[in-house]
Amino acid sequence: MALYPKDMEELILKLSSLPTIGRKSARRLAFKIVEMDQDEVFDLAKTLVNVKENIKPCRVCGNITDGEICDICSDDSRDKTTIIVVEDSSNIISLEKAREYRGLYHVIGGLLSPRNEIGPENLNIDSLIERVKTGEIKEVILSLSSTTDGEFTSGLISEILKPYGVKVTKIAQGIPIGVSLDYFDEMSIYRAIEDRREI
Amino acid sequence: MALYPKDMEELILKLSSLPTIGRKSARRLAFKIVEMDQDEVFDLAKTLVNVKENIKPCRVCGNITDGEICDICSDDSRDKTTIIVVEDSSNIISLEKAREYRGLYHVIGGLLSPRNEIGPENLNIDSLIERVKTGEIKEVILSLSSTTDGEFTSGLISEILKPYGVKVTKIAQGIPIGVSLDYFDEMSIYRAIEDRREI
Repeated sequence: MALYPKDMEELILKLSSLPTIGRKSARRLAFKIVEMDQDEVFDLAKTLVNVKENIKPCRVCGNITDGEICDICSDDSRDKTTIIVVEDSSNIISLEKAREYRGLYHVIGGLLSPRNEIGPENLNIDSLIERVKTGEIKEVILSLSSTTDGEFTSGLISEILKPYGVKVTKIAQGIPIGVSLDYFDEMSIYRAIEDRREI
Repeated sequence: MALYPKDMEELILKLSSLPTIGRKSARRLAFKIVEMDQDEVFDLAKTLVNVKENIKPCRVCGNITDGEICDICSDDSRDKTTIIVVEDSSNIISLEKAREYRGLYHVIGGLLSPRNEIGPENLNIDSLIERVKTGEIKEVILSLSSTTDGEFTSGLISEILKPYGVKVTKIAQGIPIGVSLDYFDEMSIYRAIEDRREI
């Protein structure tokens, strides 16, 4: 006898394939779904679909947005001469929470990784070059993970951008090595932005 | 400026209201949804709805099933004279994994709790009495959490059932006090069933 009815087993499998959800959590979540009101479950399913349908990368910087251009790129009060380069949109949230930075961002969508055959063509680096080519950008601040791949990516972007006469800096490592930016507290991020240095 | 687009914020809120998912996990999951293929997200949403629409409590014992009567109640090879009483369907999975027990179950759907105003009328206790009244049941094994509410519920069910001449036992506490049955290993559950005693 199967332990769970088919739909239940399928839900547990799908949930446990998501990040941060193990088999035990998936099981608890699936039982919770059975107990919830039908309206609530339909609403959750609809919200999942809405996010997938309505949230896209910003056409300028790659940040998530429900329009064509994200709130940060379309905010006239922000400094249009500085770009912080991050791996993912989620990093922008962490940086914004530190309330230190008022410039723009650019999401490259990952890190270069020769081991995993991720080259510059797999990341949004060309669009970063295009933005720098306009001549409006004075400084590009690299804010990538301080892992081997992160350092390698920072180095390469720095090399690529230098011919365009833009200042390239890197946020300071006042932060543990090898940890995703999302896990830093706001003060560490604040200090790291303050202590950025030219590379 | 809101940190997230509206749909994104809504998904994060909904996910973090579920058990085992904190705000940080909800955020990671929401970003994962944005990255996933559209088909995958639609499929996940559909599976949530399927579970809600197709999984119901068994009409006999209250266990989850995608039919009218669950696989355990409709299994002719099982001992129809013994019932294990549990709080939730998820407890049945834990008990079945121990592969010790071959009788039936009854899901009461929670515990009595005077503090939270949960009385016998809020639980599936009447349907348990009906099953015992048929005279086919020889033993009812109480397998509820060893918390104050669990002990109180076991005591009350025992009192209610005694007039019907059925043997009422309780699984042994070879297991930590105050922990949900779902966290026990199979051997502990096996021993607890073996060591049950009349109350």
